[in-house]
Amino acid sequence: LKVQEINSSQNAVIKRIRSLDNRAARKECGLFLLEGKKLIEEAQANKIDLIDIVTTREFLEEELTDQLPLANLDHVSVVSDQLFKTLYTTTTSCGIVASAVQPTAHLSPLLEKENVLLVIGEEVQDPGNLGTIVRNCLAFGVDALILSKGSVDCYSPKVVRSAMGALFALPVVQEVDLEDCLKEIRKKRIAPLALDANGQTLYWQANFSTSVALIFGNEGRGLCQATLDGADSVLSIPIAQKCESLNIGVSVGIILAHIDREKRM
Amino acid sequence: LKVQEINSSQNAVIKRIRSLDNRAARKECGLFLLEGKKLIEEAQANKIDLIDIVTTREFLEEELTDQLPLANLDHVSVVSDQLFKTLYTTTTSCGIVASAVQPTAHLSPLLEKENVLLVIGEEVQDPGNLGTIVRNCLAFGVDALILSKGSVDCYSPKVVRSAMGALFALPVVQEVDLEDCLKEIRKKRIAPLALDANGQTLYWQANFSTSVALIFGNEGRGLCQATLDGADSVLSIPIAQKCESLNIGVSVGIILAHIDREKRM
Repeated sequence: LKVQEINSSQNAVIKRIRSLDNRAARKECGLFLLEGKKLIEEAQANKIDLIDIVTTREFLEEELTDQLPLANLDHVSVVSDQLFKTLYTTTTSCGIVASAVQPTAHLSPLLEKENVLLVIGEEVQDPGNLGTIVRNCLAFGVDALILSKGSVDCYSPKVVRSAMGALFALPVVQEVDLEDCLKEIRKKRIAPLALDANGQTLYWQANFSTSVALIFGNEGRGLCQATLDGADSVLSIPIAQKCESLNIGVSVGIILAHIDREKRM
Repeated sequence: LKVQEINSSQNAVIKRIRSLDNRAARKECGLFLLEGKKLIEEAQANKIDLIDIVTTREFLEEELTDQLPLANLDHVSVVSDQLFKTLYTTTTSCGIVASAVQPTAHLSPLLEKENVLLVIGEEVQDPGNLGTIVRNCLAFGVDALILSKGSVDCYSPKVVRSAMGALFALPVVQEVDLEDCLKEIRKKRIAPLALDANGQTLYWQANFSTSVALIFGNEGRGLCQATLDGADSVLSIPIAQKCESLNIGVSVGIILAHIDREKRM
C-alpha cells in the first residue's frame, strides 16, 4: 500500500474530491464521491474504478489492515482530521472517502433486449427517493433506470448514500429528453405504462408479460400531461381515501414487486 | 382572529414550542410540533387540538386571510423573523408552527376487532422510514401501528414531516414491551408474521385472510431472534442476489399492498 501524505487544502486531490459535491463539477470530470468503507468496498466488488482515496491517520492504522477487503487498495492519501472534515458531506466522519469513475450506460443496446423492463423517472427531485428507487430497480431485475432532464443527479452524494451500493450494479441513463425517449421506446414495441394516483387501471390488471417501461413522475406534481397522454395505460395503486398519497419510492417498489412476483409464480 | 405579539425568547409559548424538538419534553407535556401551513391544516381537518400557533408578521398578512382554511384559527402569536428562526427544525422557514396534542391510542380495544390488521415495529431507528411506514399503514387500511420500546418517537419533528399528515388519522401505540404484546396478540388469535430477508415463506404464500400482526425490525439488525422464534411464519420478499436489501419502508409497503390487493380482488 503506497501512502502519500497531503497537508495542503490546495492539493489537487483535495480540491477534486471537494468539487464532487457539485453537479457541474461531477459532470465535467465524470467522477463521483464515495463516503465510508462499506460503499468503497462495494464499488470495488463491482469493478468501479477508484481514482483518489483519502483517509485519516487513525483510519489507516486501525482499518486498513491485511484482513480487510479494503487492503487491496494500491494507494491512499493521508490527511489530518481537520483537512478530512472538508471532504465528507455526512454529519459524522466516515474515515475514508474516494473519487470514483461514473459508470456509463447507453440506451440503444438496452432497447434491443427481449422482454426488457425499464423504469423511467420524470423530474425526480428527492435524492433519498431516487436512492430507494435505484435499490428497488436492482432488487427486482430492472434492466435500466432512465432519468429525464431536470431530475436530481443520481451521482450526488445523497443519492449514492441512499442507494447503498445498488448504483454500482444498475445501468442508469441520465439527462434524457423524455419525448424522444418515449418515441424510441414505442418504435421498439416496449409498452410505456405511467404511474399516477388518478390512473384508470388498477396496477394488477395491467399486462406486464411483454416489454414494459414504467414511468413515474415528480414527487409533488406527478407526471406531466404529455407523458400521461403518451402512455398505453395509466396505472394506479388504490389507497384509502383518508390517505393523501404514498411515497414515490414505495409506489415504484410495489409495482416492481408485483411484476417480479408474476414472473416467479 | 386574536393576535398576540411576542417579543421575548423567554416567553412561555416560545419556550414550550422550542422544547418540542426533545423527546422527553414531548412526553412530559403530551404535545408535538407541527411545521408549516399544510400540516397544520391537515391536523385541523383531523380534529387534532392545537395549543399554540406562532407565525411571522409576513405570514400573518399574506397567508392568514379569510379565503384560507387556516383562517378558522381563533388565536395566533406573532414573532419577529429572528425569533421565529429558533422555532422550526427545517432548513428553510415554514412561516407558521403550532404545538398540538398527541393523539392517544390504546391497544386493548384494537385487539378485540374482527379481522384486524396490525403492524408492529421493533426498534425502528430512522425517522424518514417510520414516516413512510405511517403513510403505508394509513394507505392500506392498517388498524394500528405498534412501536416497541427503543424505537424512534413517532412524534419527533422529522417523523411528523415525513408522515405528511398520515399520523393524524392512524392509531399509533408507542413504547410497547414487545414480549408482552406478542403474548397478548396470540391470546386474541391474531397471527404474528415476521418480515425478514432470510424468511422461509415467500410473502405471497402466507395466509392473510385472518387477523394478522406484521412485525418488522431495525433497519440495520433486523428482528431479534426471540421475535423471529415467536412468529407463526417468517416472510421474505425475494430479490436479486446482487442487491443487498430493500428499504424497510418499501418492504412494509410491498407486503401491505399485497394484503390489500388480495382483499380487493
